[in-house]
Amino acid sequence: MKIEGKSYKTIWFESNSVKIIDQTKLPHQFVIKDLKTVKDSINAIKTMEVRGAPLIGATAAYGLVLSIVENNDLSFLKKSSEELIASRPTAINLKWAVDRMMKKLNGINEKDILKIALDEAKAIKEEDEGFCKNIGLNGLKIIEEIFDKKKDTVNILTHCNAGWLATIDWGTATSPIYHAHKKGIKVHVWVDETRPRNQGALLTAWELKNEKIPHTVIVDNAGGYLMQNGYVDMCLVGSDRTTLSGDVCNKIGTYLKAISAYENNVPFYVALPSSTIDQNIEFGKDIPIEVRGGEEISKICFEESKKIIKANIFPKVIKTFNPAFDTTPAKYITKLITEKGLLNAKKSEIKKILEN
Amino acid sequence: MKIEGKSYKTIWFESNSVKIIDQTKLPHQFVIKDLKTVKDSINAIKTMEVRGAPLIGATAAYGLVLSIVENNDLSFLKKSSEELIASRPTAINLKWAVDRMMKKLNGINEKDILKIALDEAKAIKEEDEGFCKNIGLNGLKIIEEIFDKKKDTVNILTHCNAGWLATIDWGTATSPIYHAHKKGIKVHVWVDETRPRNQGALLTAWELKNEKIPHTVIVDNAGGYLMQNGYVDMCLVGSDRTTLSGDVCNKIGTYLKAISAYENNVPFYVALPSSTIDQNIEFGKDIPIEVRGGEEISKICFEESKKIIKANIFPKVIKTFNPAFDTTPAKYITKLITEKGLLNAKKSEIKKILEN
Repeated sequence: MKIEGKSYKTIWFESNSVKIIDQTKLPHQFVIKDLKTVKDSINAIKTMEVRGAPLIGATAAYGLVLSIVENNDLSFLKKSSEELIASRPTAINLKWAVDRMMKKLNGINEKDILKIALDEAKAIKEEDEGFCKNIGLNGLKIIEEIFDKKKDTVNILTHCNAGWLATIDWGTATSPIYHAHKKGIKVHVWVDETRPRNQGALLTAWELKNEKIPHTVIVDNAGGYLMQNGYVDMCLVGSDRTTLSGDVCNKIGTYLKAISAYENNVPFYVALPSSTIDQNIEFGKDIPIEVRGGEEISKICFEESKKIIKANIFPKVIKTFNPAFDTTPAKYITKLITEKGLLNAKKSEIKKILEN
Repeated sequence: MKIEGKSYKTIWFESNSVKIIDQTKLPHQFVIKDLKTVKDSINAIKTMEVRGAPLIGATAAYGLVLSIVENNDLSFLKKSSEELIASRPTAINLKWAVDRMMKKLNGINEKDILKIALDEAKAIKEEDEGFCKNIGLNGLKIIEEIFDKKKDTVNILTHCNAGWLATIDWGTATSPIYHAHKKGIKVHVWVDETRPRNQGALLTAWELKNEKIPHTVIVDNAGGYLMQNGYVDMCLVGSDRTTLSGDVCNKIGTYLKAISAYENNVPFYVALPSSTIDQNIEFGKDIPIEVRGGEEISKICFEESKKIIKANIFPKVIKTFNPAFDTTPAKYITKLITEKGLLNAKKSEIKKILEN
């Protein structure tokens, strides 16, 4: 998608290093960062310079490429793969991408391994782009349908950033929105701020501004009021992990929006590439939830004299608890939007698309 | 209640001026501020140096006292009363307090008017203290019951600050907690940060710390996860306005917690003095909702070198929408806790206590 009129992807390989957009600096500063070692990749994932399940997957894949550039010994590669998987516990396609790379590289000789790793990382990247594009085309039908009925701007509430910055391009939840906008359908996006890391206010709003799509930032508390009062035509969020029975693990707070949508008859859609479906987990309650540091709540970033500064917004001594995700049971979800089509959040339908 | 070991009220009259605690500076700085004119009072209400329905009511009552000190002409008093009522549209007992004062002062001669105004403002203040104390004693029964069953710490989730800082003393939602703690019942409070103004993280946490009650600050998004996973025994919030049918208008985001409690079988209690019941409004949907400035979302306060600084956390150009309250329908409310006892959020029971 575009940044100040110029097209970008979120990750690319160039002269033996991996280039990423440092998302911790957005929207204040647009900085392209070089990752030169697997440690750099792990660090980028851990500190959320890259975030979002698909982009984390691609960064891990390229992390293994960097590992080979650094040291093409197999034991080093294996250690790298384990460290990469451990860097964020919730994102299922981090493990998916690493496993896929390791399977491809199994038994490859030293001479060929770098090229094959690079090709496979590129394939993962390009596949994700295709997935996101198709998610957009499938989700577009839903927005079109609402627009045809309403004959006026479609108001879409989204949580966190399931935008192109979280993927390679297009995004998941944003892809139907970008496709609708390109088709001339009037859309307006309610952007949940998304505490504690404010990915909505910082990243989603920045994306939408760059694509010239009307949007309004709200606090996470406001969505219930908006839905009660008819300001929301649909909710559209991403998923970090989806279970076989259709429960969705996504950014903390997603669940509150889903139950509010349910109570107010607002349809609630989840956009996801099928790679984020965890076939080993049946129910959301069994997904381990990452608990992150309390300083994500107590500190906040702002820009001053071109520097990004972190300040305490309440005293350090105050105890905090910071679970990063929650689980939305399938019953609250109107449809899952995948690259393979729209489906109900039901085991039978999920199994069917996994078999295709 | 106590601040660093010393007992305070939130408002008092001393040498022809009204003293308040400037709540916009908490928890960074504890500053007692003088209000000398009715304009000062209006400004204190508007800028939320004082906030919370009961304290706003008392500040308005003392505002009329200051108006008389300034100019005891009746037309000036009338104008002051109108300006005071207009200063915050949602808080019902702002109007209640002003109307009560004006009724009392009707026909009083110039010589006596100041003393009578002062006595009435003091009466409003002392009444509220008594109400809050009784809310605490009535709510204490609920906490005791849970403790007797659980035989372990009672985990209470609260939203915003319905603490003593929002009243004269004790608070509304916090009063049962303070009473339980004083009685030796183990309680722990989950404090919703409460965006956009962070009254939970800034004020409720500060109150609880000063009273040595265990507490943990969470983002507003986290409550659903906590309730899904058994971390919350009860929710306990305040009310800015309660309708005849038992709908509750309270700080934005309250509704999301109420529906989450409902979905997860967590009891949801609302503590309120009966003066916040609006007999002229039957349903919550008819309560006008105050929409406040977007800079409450885009700017944040922190302390640097003893100064309180406001910084932009996302670019000013981003559009925002900032409704300050939402309405929780009566069906989600387990009980209302009033100074007159516990009652169901039902018209018949509400009418009964209003008649007593």
